[in-house]
Amino acid sequence: MSQQNGNRSRINVEIYGQQYSVVGDESTSHIRIVAAIVDDKMRELNAKNPSLDTNRLAVLTAVNVVHDYIKLKEENEKLKERMRQKGLE
Amino acid sequence: MSQQNGNRSRINVEIYGQQYSVVGDESTSHIRIVAAIVDDKMRELNAKNPSLDTNRLAVLTAVNVVHDYIKLKEENEKLKERMRQKGLE
Repeated sequence: MSQQNGNRSRINVEIYGQQYSVVGDESTSHIRIVAAIVDDKMRELNAKNPSLDTNRLAVLTAVNVVHDYIKLKEENEKLKERMRQKGLE
Repeated sequence: MSQQNGNRSRINVEIYGQQYSVVGDESTSHIRIVAAIVDDKMRELNAKNPSLDTNRLAVLTAVNVVHDYIKLKEENEKLKERMRQKGLE
């Protein structure tokens, strides 16, 4: 998903009080859910660290999500390895 | 991972030209990898959308990472469901 233009669907979402025009192949509801998660995570981080400015808050939100992504990726690889061992792939 | 203080390890990383002090239970190398991924993603998005300010760039990076996370989570659930069906859980 990006802010680039193209032939794909474009929807407007609000994240942490700012409007974003997001383009993607995904459904409108998926894009809205993603925006709501980012908004929630930024507000949660702000509650814990009220001195952080919006920019740092957004970067640290991305840091936390990449951390979660790597952990999930590791779990995913273990599941796939287990399936391979059982001859399920 | 967060910017909060505590008894956990704290390391300094640079993301998109700014210094961050990140605290976490994870290894230093894990935190450095996470920071490098966020930095790469911000630079990649900036190359595609040079008019975006740093704040919007950071928020849209978080949006993209949450999108990737949800896709991976869906794949993960499918793998688990397949394992359940095969009596492996």
